Amino acid sequence: MSATLGELAVAFGCQLRGDPDTRIESVATLAGGPGQLGFVASKGYLEALAATRLSAVVADARLAASCPTAVLMHRNPHATFARIAALLHPPAPLRPGVHPSAQVATDAQVDPTAEIGPFALIGARARIGARCRVGAYALVGDGVEIGADTQLLARVTVIGAARIGQRCVVHPGAVIGSDGFGNARDGEGWLKVPQLGSVHIGDDVEIGANTTIDRGALDNTVISDGVRLDNQIQIGHNVQIGAHTAIAACTGIAGSTRIGRRCMIGGGTGIGGQIEIGDDIIISGFGMVTNSLHEPGMYSSVLPVEPVRVGRRIVGRIKRLDVLGERVRRIETASGITSEQATGQHDDD
Amino acid sequence: MSATLGELAVAFGCQLRGDPDTRIESVATLAGGPGQLGFVASKGYLEALAATRLSAVVADARLAASCPTAVLMHRNPHATFARIAALLHPPAPLRPGVHPSAQVATDAQVDPTAEIGPFALIGARARIGARCRVGAYALVGDGVEIGADTQLLARVTVIGAARIGQRCVVHPGAVIGSDGFGNARDGEGWLKVPQLGSVHIGDDVEIGANTTIDRGALDNTVISDGVRLDNQIQIGHNVQIGAHTAIAACTGIAGSTRIGRRCMIGGGTGIGGQIEIGDDIIISGFGMVTNSLHEPGMYSSVLPVEPVRVGRRIVGRIKRLDVLGERVRRIETASGITSEQATGQHDDD
Amino acid sequence: MSATLGELAVAFGCQLRGDPDTRIESVATLAGGPGQLGFVASKGYLEALAATRLSAVVADARLAASCPTAVLMHRNPHATFARIAALLHPPAPLRPGVHPSAQVATDAQVDPTAEIGPFALIGARARIGARCRVGAYALVGDGVEIGADTQLLARVTVIGAARIGQRCVVHPGAVIGSDGFGNARDGEGWLKVPQLGSVHIGDDVEIGANTTIDRGALDNTVISDGVRLDNQIQIGHNVQIGAHTAIAACTGIAGSTRIGRRCMIGGGTGIGGQIEIGDDIIISGFGMVTNSLHEPGMYSSVLPVEPVRVGRRIVGRIKRLDVLGERVRRIETASGITSEQATGQHDDD
Repeated sequence: MSATLGELAVAFGCQLRGDPDTRIESVATLAGGPGQLGFVASKGYLEALAATRLSAVVADARLAASCPTAVLMHRNPHATFARIAALLHPPAPLRPGVHPSAQVATDAQVDPTAEIGPFALIGARARIGARCRVGAYALVGDGVEIGADTQLLARVTVIGAARIGQRCVVHPGAVIGSDGFGNARDGEGWLKVPQLGSVHIGDDVEIGANTTIDRGALDNTVISDGVRLDNQIQIGHNVQIGAHTAIAACTGIAGSTRIGRRCMIGGGTGIGGQIEIGDDIIISGFGMVTNSLHEPGMYSSVLPVEPVRVGRRIVGRIKRLDVLGERVRRIETASGITSEQATGQHDDD
Repeated sequence: MSATLGELAVAFGCQLRGDPDTRIESVATLAGGPGQLGFVASKGYLEALAATRLSAVVADARLAASCPTAVLMHRNPHATFARIAALLHPPAPLRPGVHPSAQVATDAQVDPTAEIGPFALIGARARIGARCRVGAYALVGDGVEIGADTQLLARVTVIGAARIGQRCVVHPGAVIGSDGFGNARDGEGWLKVPQLGSVHIGDDVEIGANTTIDRGALDNTVISDGVRLDNQIQIGHNVQIGAHTAIAACTGIAGSTRIGRRCMIGGGTGIGGQIEIGDDIIISGFGMVTNSLHEPGMYSSVLPVEPVRVGRRIVGRIKRLDVLGERVRRIETASGITSEQATGQHDDD
Repeated sequence: MSATLGELAVAFGCQLRGDPDTRIESVATLAGGPGQLGFVASKGYLEALAATRLSAVVADARLAASCPTAVLMHRNPHATFARIAALLHPPAPLRPGVHPSAQVATDAQVDPTAEIGPFALIGARARIGARCRVGAYALVGDGVEIGADTQLLARVTVIGAARIGQRCVVHPGAVIGSDGFGNARDGEGWLKVPQLGSVHIGDDVEIGANTTIDRGALDNTVISDGVRLDNQIQIGHNVQIGAHTAIAACTGIAGSTRIGRRCMIGGGTGIGGQIEIGDDIIISGFGMVTNSLHEPGMYSSVLPVEPVRVGRRIVGRIKRLDVLGERVRRIETASGITSEQATGQHDDD
């Protein structure tokens, strides 16, 4: 699929600087070449931009002047680039119908425009919406509902009577609706607490490879519209995630925690159970969250690696902070030099 | 399925306060309504309890007085609630037999009361016990043994001649018996060390979605009776986990580590290799364990996220602890004020 | 399969101390018995070595004297042991051909010496090299290429037109070539950025169970020859990993990061995006890497768990480091005792 710059400018509301008849075949990085289109969204790439052999670049007005190429000018170059990339590189067309090796329960409702891939399984009373793609080996369990235009890629498991909205994408190996970790003490062991809630996923949600989302214990686990979940994320039972929140890979969220709207959570973050995280909160990668966070803004706490000698000395110092505090207190006592602010801290030192 | 309060009181050894003929249809949270039964186990829910419209609540004697409903009194309300929930919400009944799309090796032994789901594979010499449920796409590899009443849910992989006991539940995407990470230095690269041990899993074990348990290198990896493993846990080769230990999601345990009985390990914990963790040890979430822990009790080490300005200042402070220590030492030297306790620490400051 | 010590000595270039006709049936730990062979590579096992009932041990010259058994002497006992283990315990033989339940696209090229397992899927234009093993349920997507002698074990997903080299092993549940986490801001939500790059994996690479490797956004994600990836690792889009680097389980590497050759990265490590890690860098387990590391050597930063009282006090101390620093500054100011080195740090205290 290809398009001219003129067609792209019209389709995506860009101002065009350059020949509208220039034909674009594909998108590329700034290292690409003729017939390709790239984008630039930060001054960090000015050097690569100056050297680019691309036919055109999407840029905002500020950076357009630095482009040695034709320019599609737009306030939001990254989103415009994404739209052009989607146009030039469309996914494989849907092949409506049920693959002969797939199995569909007799009382399941599969829209005739949906594609059900090889070895897929559609359970009893399940409903698959229009133009859905259900990939190879995908398992849509009993009572599950999948909204229109949603793609369950290969090897996705959706059980626990989960509901997934429209235009979602779920990547391979994701498990949605498995039992939460519910255990009651019983003697010296544990008794499994039946997990009876479900998972409700809104529209336009993306869920990464091998990510797991547990069903609620009694109520539902809720993932709101527009949420973005990367790979290998774990969402515990009864978690609620607000609209448009994006969470990077390897993050774990323990049960019953509520996360607000438009949050951005870096990779490898751990979030404890039964806490509240408000709207518009940003947590940098590898953070550990053990208490509720209400104030919008960025949060972090990373002790990054150091050369091992330094790292060990730092950890040793940390472990001996008690001793250092005591030494300072003795000096204060002996010398009579104290500060009011500091004195107030002595009690719990 | 439903039951009267009188039937439930008899079946689960509760003292009943209320009408024994009240019929319970399902379980619910305290926000539920008539015909439903909930439970309360802590004073944190007294407000919700006062407002509940449930027909009955399971509670201990202490909290029973606060219930505005019928009460099933029991010393362990959570476990009793779990038992009632299991009675009222039984899993789908077993459909004994082998699904026509499943494949069973000719020398495998599958108990006729077991259910083998669609697209399941049962390997050579494998043994499947009575009343087992082997889910869709589940792979029971060559020589694997599964005890009676165990459920391998959809897409579970059990290989490496692993043995799983009775009444276990393994959730979708779990991989049991894959090769451990065994590599021998060989020039500037690595040589794979064949992984020849197996995995032995006891009775009443639950294993979460996408959790991985490696086979031993030469001896076996051992998961004892009653262990609870949440989702996305990684168990390295030759790890041993004692009975009734519960481990929350996203925890990783490196090779040859031994964990005792009745431990509770919070989510996102990392446990190094070749260490020993005794019985009855509790590790709070996101902990990093690099040395053996013998003394029963709770362990933690979390530097939780802070607003980014605070977080960065704290990390800066930590990195400059050496300088702060040096400043204190100079003051001590110049002023002649030292404490014996502190002095003893100077050498390795 | 069995061999005599004489045969093993010749095959693997060892010096033999003992009877060349002694027959070895299998390998074992030092706790093994007659007919078995073990190895010893460190003085930490001298006690077990003295008590061993094995028929033979692989050891270097230094430890050979301590072996109460026949000895196969070699400079690299671990690698030699691995080679002998592979000889005595060969994997199940390949069964060339396509299993009747597998599906192969008409334009795929499958070498006739390859084994395609039950329920496997080989996509359009895919190429499977000589003597490959494609396990049960393995999915080789459209345009994917798999080199000779590579093993995709059960339930492996390879999509995104990925290329995998020769002699690789990919363990169950791994997902290679899924979409990277590419999102462009669009109003208050996110727009998916099409992921169009691929994954290139070299020769002799091993990839663990449930590990995920994303395809590049525009360019490729690259895993070089001889890399070892353990279970549940996440590799973001456009990451590059140099030859012979080994990474332990549960590590996450964010997008566009480049890691050098011969690195060793401990388990549970988090590595941020768009950073560079040079050659020969060792990162101890649970490290957090937020900046580039260029100098070869070992890096660490672990605040290990402490008994909870100690752990909480340490964290409290860390949070009050500002106050402690202020107290020291007041003493310095009041007493006139400062150190030049320390003074230089006051500005940003």
